[in-house]
Amino acid sequence: MSALRIEQVTTKKVIPKTEDLVFGKHYTDHMFVMDYQEGKGWYDPRIVPYESITLDPAAMVFHYGQTVFEGLKAYRTEDNQIKLFRPDENFKRLNRSSERLSMPQINEKDVLNYLKELIKIDQDWVPAEDGYSLYIRPFVIATEPNLSLAPSRSYRLMIILSPVGSYYKEGIHPVGIHVEEAFTRAVKGGTGTAKTAGNYSAAYKAQEKATKEGYSQVLWLDGIEKKYIEEVGSMNVFFKINGEVVTPELNGSILEGITRMSIIELLKTWGVPLSERRISLDELFRAYEQGLVEEAFGTGTAAVISPIGELNWNGKKMIINNKETGEVAKQLYETLTGIQTGKVADPFHWTVNVR
Amino acid sequence: MSALRIEQVTTKKVIPKTEDLVFGKHYTDHMFVMDYQEGKGWYDPRIVPYESITLDPAAMVFHYGQTVFEGLKAYRTEDNQIKLFRPDENFKRLNRSSERLSMPQINEKDVLNYLKELIKIDQDWVPAEDGYSLYIRPFVIATEPNLSLAPSRSYRLMIILSPVGSYYKEGIHPVGIHVEEAFTRAVKGGTGTAKTAGNYSAAYKAQEKATKEGYSQVLWLDGIEKKYIEEVGSMNVFFKINGEVVTPELNGSILEGITRMSIIELLKTWGVPLSERRISLDELFRAYEQGLVEEAFGTGTAAVISPIGELNWNGKKMIINNKETGEVAKQLYETLTGIQTGKVADPFHWTVNVR
Ligand SMILES: Cc1ncc(COP(=O)(O)O)c(C=O)c1O
Ligand SMILES: Cc1ncc(COP(=O)(O)O)c(C=O)c1O
Repeated sequence: MSALRIEQVTTKKVIPKTEDLVFGKHYTDHMFVMDYQEGKGWYDPRIVPYESITLDPAAMVFHYGQTVFEGLKAYRTEDNQIKLFRPDENFKRLNRSSERLSMPQINEKDVLNYLKELIKIDQDWVPAEDGYSLYIRPFVIATEPNLSLAPSRSYRLMIILSPVGSYYKEGIHPVGIHVEEAFTRAVKGGTGTAKTAGNYSAAYKAQEKATKEGYSQVLWLDGIEKKYIEEVGSMNVFFKINGEVVTPELNGSILEGITRMSIIELLKTWGVPLSERRISLDELFRAYEQGLVEEAFGTGTAAVISPIGELNWNGKKMIINNKETGEVAKQLYETLTGIQTGKVADPFHWTVNVR
Repeated sequence: MSALRIEQVTTKKVIPKTEDLVFGKHYTDHMFVMDYQEGKGWYDPRIVPYESITLDPAAMVFHYGQTVFEGLKAYRTEDNQIKLFRPDENFKRLNRSSERLSMPQINEKDVLNYLKELIKIDQDWVPAEDGYSLYIRPFVIATEPNLSLAPSRSYRLMIILSPVGSYYKEGIHPVGIHVEEAFTRAVKGGTGTAKTAGNYSAAYKAQEKATKEGYSQVLWLDGIEKKYIEEVGSMNVFFKINGEVVTPELNGSILEGITRMSIIELLKTWGVPLSERRISLDELFRAYEQGLVEEAFGTGTAAVISPIGELNWNGKKMIINNKETGEVAKQLYETLTGIQTGKVADPFHWTVNVR
């Protein structure tokens, strides 16, 4: 682990009141930065004041999109500890994403240690209120100024921190979902399993359609047959059908969510019947007609669990569990947020203390 | 058209000797910049010294990939004029790309005028030597600092200029191509028809495979059936089969190349049989076995025409035209580069004089 250099701010910002927090709008006083050069590796890890970065207009990130990112959260517990939830999985996934984008690997342990130092320095920014947390955004960008079509030979890793409000101001409530048939999020052989910038802006057009129709998120189908369910918004998706919980299996275009992974482990421990398999919209609608669709929910770091109350497949509508949050969704939400905030025992050792 | 502000450099750079030029490594003295703000539109068009740009680490381009770009060239004619080749088509395509990425439209005419002013100021950088030109890279990036998953409300358009060497130091020569079956460049419903950063870095892994096998480019198949030919490297692709020129039809995942478009018009004028249609690798290999594959070449702004001498489809090899440049490829190359540099008449009015 290279020596970490720390340069503290001289004047701290005023920390916004939790009720004024807007997702992704406020950043803490410091950020972590580390550079990479081919032949030299990663160098100069440093915690510096949060500030703008300077890049050549020919920096490859602007032209050919080599960039990967992660999203995780730090939670303040009732006894005033600060916990991270499975951060090792985020840094592993960052490396998998980088591999897909021909970007260099990081030392996951070192970067986790740097992150802990950063959070310690900005610890006053970790909200204490229920449902609030500190959102952590590690990302890597290609910095070489070069218009040739080849991997960049220099990169920058940064970690920025943003205190975020509760996704659910009035508790968790089911949302309506538009099934997208024209636009494709990801396809086998593409970049869907990587957290890379290009995947996200590519999804805006479908989200626009959903919003126009009065739905809050998009259900993505596979890019090949437009038949099988993949994800919802930028979340993984689960259904409870006739007593069994079903989630699409990882197929080379679905992002391997850490919430998804944790839910699967939890349900297995609880003895809830579960299968990871291909599931078509047709199958889901057939089950619905037989009255067998009991619950549906999206899962991800931001919302943890987002129950689905309604699906609209080109005019064919499905109302799930009377638009109420189901039992499994509720239990998963309570357990996961409980573990994250230290209110519930953590038999899996998923949480990591920052201090 | 908003008033253009011009700030010239005080000290000009030394223009590199043409023989020292490396693609995309040298930039001229100035660049064009214009900003966009939701509710206000595009503002402050300006030509300023080429310099680094400053962005918030939370600028959306780094996280969600809203960025589009173009690539075109300026040529110096023998009588010392400077010409652009179909620049209106590039700005139209920039707008189509922006539409796909939920980014704002530009006024194509205004931006073309700004570009002409920029080139006039840096006109000494347009090489005069045969095969050399000034590569022009317009691009737009999302600048709003915000981690929410929604289109940015601010953008920056920039145009940078780079003198580039000839693709063919010793004349045009056929290259070997690796047929990629695992990785996918683009799929229907995705972003393949847009020139957006994410498409390009997603292609590096396949290019790595090609290079390892000793081939210089990748032949991309459709993302759905992995059966139909789409593009080669970042070029469109043409085959001459039994007297007919065939190119894959635009299908929602192929980029609409301006060289492709121009070649189609030229061949039609010449009375060469031509069809834009779906063509499978199977069909191509069957034709090859019958001795009917006469030529193959990629087309794009960078190389204009890039003849293909060999195709390797998972060990199945095809040698085309004895690895020599075919007649159609040669004629298209001479005609297109002739029109671009003013040596050949331009009945289509494709070129636009900068001065
Ligand atoms: C496309 C996509 N799917 C699913 C997820 C859920 O993953 P996680 O549970 O790790 O947050 C995310 C968010 O990270 C995502 O971006
Ligand atoms: C993916 C891709 N295909 C094809 C082309 C060829 O297009 P054009 O002839 O306009 O340069 C390009 C380059 O612009 C490209 O990026």
